[in-house]
Amino acid sequence: MEIYNIEGMIKVGIVGASGYTGLELIRILSKHPEIKISILTSERYANSSVSSIFPSLLGWVDMKYKDFLPEEIIDKSDLIFTALPHKKAMSIIPIFLKSGKRVIDMSADYRIKDPHIYERWYSNIHTSPELLNSAVYGLPEIYRAEIKSAKLVANPGCYPTSVILAMAPLIKTDLIYNDSIIVDSKSGISGAGRSPDLAFQFAECNENVRAYSISVHRHIPEIEQELSILSGEDIKVSFTPHLIPMTRGLLSTIYVNLREIPMEGYLLERYKEFYKYEPFVRLMEEGRSADTHNVTTSNYCDIGINVDVRTKRVVLTSAIDNLVKGASGQAVQNMNILYGFREDMGLECPGIFP
Amino acid sequence: MEIYNIEGMIKVGIVGASGYTGLELIRILSKHPEIKISILTSERYANSSVSSIFPSLLGWVDMKYKDFLPEEIIDKSDLIFTALPHKKAMSIIPIFLKSGKRVIDMSADYRIKDPHIYERWYSNIHTSPELLNSAVYGLPEIYRAEIKSAKLVANPGCYPTSVILAMAPLIKTDLIYNDSIIVDSKSGISGAGRSPDLAFQFAECNENVRAYSISVHRHIPEIEQELSILSGEDIKVSFTPHLIPMTRGLLSTIYVNLREIPMEGYLLERYKEFYKYEPFVRLMEEGRSADTHNVTTSNYCDIGINVDVRTKRVVLTSAIDNLVKGASGQAVQNMNILYGFREDMGLECPGIFP
Amino acid sequence: MEIYNIEGMIKVGIVGASGYTGLELIRILSKHPEIKISILTSERYANSSVSSIFPSLLGWVDMKYKDFLPEEIIDKSDLIFTALPHKKAMSIIPIFLKSGKRVIDMSADYRIKDPHIYERWYSNIHTSPELLNSAVYGLPEIYRAEIKSAKLVANPGCYPTSVILAMAPLIKTDLIYNDSIIVDSKSGISGAGRSPDLAFQFAECNENVRAYSISVHRHIPEIEQELSILSGEDIKVSFTPHLIPMTRGLLSTIYVNLREIPMEGYLLERYKEFYKYEPFVRLMEEGRSADTHNVTTSNYCDIGINVDVRTKRVVLTSAIDNLVKGASGQAVQNMNILYGFREDMGLECPGIFP
Amino acid sequence: MEIYNIEGMIKVGIVGASGYTGLELIRILSKHPEIKISILTSERYANSSVSSIFPSLLGWVDMKYKDFLPEEIIDKSDLIFTALPHKKAMSIIPIFLKSGKRVIDMSADYRIKDPHIYERWYSNIHTSPELLNSAVYGLPEIYRAEIKSAKLVANPGCYPTSVILAMAPLIKTDLIYNDSIIVDSKSGISGAGRSPDLAFQFAECNENVRAYSISVHRHIPEIEQELSILSGEDIKVSFTPHLIPMTRGLLSTIYVNLREIPMEGYLLERYKEFYKYEPFVRLMEEGRSADTHNVTTSNYCDIGINVDVRTKRVVLTSAIDNLVKGASGQAVQNMNILYGFREDMGLECPGIFP
Repeated sequence: MEIYNIEGMIKVGIVGASGYTGLELIRILSKHPEIKISILTSERYANSSVSSIFPSLLGWVDMKYKDFLPEEIIDKSDLIFTALPHKKAMSIIPIFLKSGKRVIDMSADYRIKDPHIYERWYSNIHTSPELLNSAVYGLPEIYRAEIKSAKLVANPGCYPTSVILAMAPLIKTDLIYNDSIIVDSKSGISGAGRSPDLAFQFAECNENVRAYSISVHRHIPEIEQELSILSGEDIKVSFTPHLIPMTRGLLSTIYVNLREIPMEGYLLERYKEFYKYEPFVRLMEEGRSADTHNVTTSNYCDIGINVDVRTKRVVLTSAIDNLVKGASGQAVQNMNILYGFREDMGLECPGIFP
Repeated sequence: MEIYNIEGMIKVGIVGASGYTGLELIRILSKHPEIKISILTSERYANSSVSSIFPSLLGWVDMKYKDFLPEEIIDKSDLIFTALPHKKAMSIIPIFLKSGKRVIDMSADYRIKDPHIYERWYSNIHTSPELLNSAVYGLPEIYRAEIKSAKLVANPGCYPTSVILAMAPLIKTDLIYNDSIIVDSKSGISGAGRSPDLAFQFAECNENVRAYSISVHRHIPEIEQELSILSGEDIKVSFTPHLIPMTRGLLSTIYVNLREIPMEGYLLERYKEFYKYEPFVRLMEEGRSADTHNVTTSNYCDIGINVDVRTKRVVLTSAIDNLVKGASGQAVQNMNILYGFREDMGLECPGIFP
Repeated sequence: MEIYNIEGMIKVGIVGASGYTGLELIRILSKHPEIKISILTSERYANSSVSSIFPSLLGWVDMKYKDFLPEEIIDKSDLIFTALPHKKAMSIIPIFLKSGKRVIDMSADYRIKDPHIYERWYSNIHTSPELLNSAVYGLPEIYRAEIKSAKLVANPGCYPTSVILAMAPLIKTDLIYNDSIIVDSKSGISGAGRSPDLAFQFAECNENVRAYSISVHRHIPEIEQELSILSGEDIKVSFTPHLIPMTRGLLSTIYVNLREIPMEGYLLERYKEFYKYEPFVRLMEEGRSADTHNVTTSNYCDIGINVDVRTKRVVLTSAIDNLVKGASGQAVQNMNILYGFREDMGLECPGIFP
Repeated sequence: MEIYNIEGMIKVGIVGASGYTGLELIRILSKHPEIKISILTSERYANSSVSSIFPSLLGWVDMKYKDFLPEEIIDKSDLIFTALPHKKAMSIIPIFLKSGKRVIDMSADYRIKDPHIYERWYSNIHTSPELLNSAVYGLPEIYRAEIKSAKLVANPGCYPTSVILAMAPLIKTDLIYNDSIIVDSKSGISGAGRSPDLAFQFAECNENVRAYSISVHRHIPEIEQELSILSGEDIKVSFTPHLIPMTRGLLSTIYVNLREIPMEGYLLERYKEFYKYEPFVRLMEEGRSADTHNVTTSNYCDIGINVDVRTKRVVLTSAIDNLVKGASGQAVQNMNILYGFREDMGLECPGIFP
């Protein structure tokens, strides 16, 4: 276990704390009883108080953003969350690790085990491939044991979280054709991050649905890597993300060809068995789909299972809040595992509807 | 050709003219230079003026809604649009036809050629199966010739319109596996109609995406019938509709397994050839997807084509305005064909963005 | 203090627990450490589990809704929240009170002290006017002392909460003309409640803003009563509520004529002094307005103060989450006061943005 | 009348044709039977086709954007619309005028008659004050006669359009206190224009309502100038604009103190009389408010009148589509007047609802 600060609380630093992911980390951690936010960095807002930029946090987080100084961050933190764009993340994380700090990285830089695959999809040379082996893919439902002792946790992408959790119980079976997986995902616009961009202006996104990065989205190698590890086979998926006019929420609808039609209720039972000790996976009753508004602001992944006897396919629906289980909530869950806290600490909340 | 009224204009009646489909018919027809709206019925609003119920039409359509009296409708109309729920539509349409009037029916009652299939999916005995043979499925891009002389046009459903237009050029080829078609559709909430229903209240739909009627939606037999006719084989599709928080717009994302990878640009050329004389089908340039906000309030169907070489699939995106090409615009297009008007009369407008 | 149940927790019953207000009460109370939800009634959903109706609460509140049986509610509850429509509320609350139970009423039935005024605005005879005197208007910032010993708390309306909190520090001064108060409010659609109603269907509300009940809204007498009590004069206000296309959030923009221009910063200081011990009122810095997204899901009322020297008016902005500080959060705050709990218990959360 | 091009059509150029205002001009003009778009400029998109940037116009406007070259614009156009930011507009308009071309300017540069007032509110020296006198404020309902022979039309702002039309019939009477006018406006986000700006990103605007530029918005001097001219007195107004989560639409709610209560129906009659020949002003029946969704995409201004006897105030609601009557539709209306076309040419459409 880490060295605690004098009040016995873990000191947590967040690098890049003014994007939506960083902001959501702040919001969740501000209520966490065992940690203390010790430093927040933001180039854009250095020397401004967090609550002057985000008045939602007024009275909760009134400390100031700092400029990015690695030594100061190392000095002030036991654990560091990096909420930086890919490439930028790997330019600094090795330094944090060398200083003995633990890191939970929200970027994609340490998710892909094979640096060549990373380089192909991210058009970017990997500058610390030696860390890829020890980095742990931070999906607790699959890698809980490894996360416990990780120095570097690669927090999963939002789309991969929804897809891998929905597919894990199925991909290990003989029930499906592994080459038939088609994923159609729908995301709220907050997933696009918090930078001025014409494509994500209100009037461009409202009253519209659009597919993007069809078959070339960077979450594809991440999904394929994890499904391949789980199945022991080389898995390829078709993946189309869509942007829809809402702020939070991500739904993946997944189509898989069945080798044969299972008995009624069999799949649901299998999923219940698979996830029976999981605090953050909820299964919809037979025939119900997972809707995003049931998980808003919560760390849940809701999964619905539908068997289509006519076409011999199973249709899965998997809903998360892209900013929580799809990013910052999952990162806090990983932190809880790292430090031996109750896994849902700071994350105990139902979905907020309406 | 029909008997014209003294001013030389076609007299048009709309039965069930206070739902969104009826309202959209009124809006489009109010600007049509060759016809005259002669009667509008609505049980809910009988004796109220249209513009007192829908002030958007103030100064345009100030006539009053009438109660439903078949004789009066027959007496006042050359052509009758029926915008009634299924079952109710077929209870009255035979009477209209018997009186010699032409009918364009917005319901599903005469779309399915096989009454047994209709009965299975609609849980409803068909009371005039003898009309199914002469009823013409009102998709002009496929059935223009038949529509010209039809007495009864069965106006297609919104989802089928988007799917059949996207698939037609492909289904006739040897390029695809016909048993691999998966359709994932996203619709605005106006598609659910205009009746008070908790499921479609603002606070239930906003900030949410949800799948519904997974694998059991009533548009499935309609899609399968038409794709089967086009291909000459028995086609089955997986179909999942979703509701997303917008008013208008419908996007279908369609996944199909390719037998082999076509040369770059080949598919787009094929589609361009197929649709070269069509006024209402627009093809996106290579690699672009069809977005719904480009077709809003217009009668266009925009189609995007993406080939995924890695997974050997083609991914189609097909966007329509569910109330226009997906309903009332298409009905007016059918009317124009019936009467030999220019096919885009009353429908000449680009998409309205933003 | 009440008799506790054996585990030392207050037993709480909610009557009418399937509207948005009831649902929000359930959500907040499900995390409250000192109380236990003992019974929930809903005519619509009797015998269904709460989480089957609202899967957002899956794993949190899986108990079943009960039919409305007054004896059972009395038997099972120490404290009863009534989330019923007006008129219905006052038909049952006297029975609860007679049995010795405390009641927090979400309806308007006991807010107006003068039964004739109630009758004029609600077109409804008051059937228990004898209770009006002892009922306490549940706005803790004004009536904390009285709430502590209340048997019946009349929980304020959403609009009045935003207006009274914004006006209270000002109405007691000589700075303003009391006859010049104009309130223009904007509310999310969840404020309209959870019943099927055409007016609140998604497609009717989206992409629209509309004023309603101009100068005749039932919250007017409630606002006027409280401002009159605070000022010691008979206050009349102009009030126009608007519905805007969002789910949660309520902003009141208030215009008041100033007798003279105060020194810069004076008003903000005055407000800070007035609210210095209040846990749920936050003041925006000079020149900033209160925006609803900063208070979403929280119990805060954010207030912004702008002085317009040119026109000699002060413009106040007051933002709440209509379902929290505007309804259920405030009710829980009242419960905390009633039972001597920390006032923010179960309500400790910042606004959730984005 | 102007010199026509050989086909007898007016050649129209649009400078700055890739913002929302420019785009809306293109959309409306693309259907106008008497003019021809001859040149479109956009720095951002020079050499790209309009329909590749805005696929909504595919098949309608496939010409290319040009770089900004004043001579080319002058050479190719009979009439020039300038859809540039203020300051930039006045740097080029004098050149256009000198060459003998007519200009309709969408910016604020020639709306304010007094250059000192302009300079105070726009923090900007006016570089062609000699043109202010001959520039005509392009509100046809007030200045139709002057527009007919104008060389330079200063197209009004969106907020002023809604306010001046609502106030004009009243401001000329003795019925009101002229110093009591309070305007509370709510606008869709398209009003903020089409540039990447964090403040107008979807996730920042959705589920939020916020006031901005309270008492300091630049449309204030424009409103005050025109109301002062109409009344013959020096008018000051309180004005608070708000942004609400919708794309199009603008509602102004206006509060005015009455000297005495007029007889029922009197005000509506007065307004009907005042606007009896106006094609684009519609009056709501007694007691109904103007809602924005009734005017969407149309050039109407809908006005509702409510008298509050209790507080002796009149409450006006005035709804426009900010991009049409609030900008580009009005500009086309001005063009029609300039050239003697039917005033509603190219603008004949009802509101589009839903």
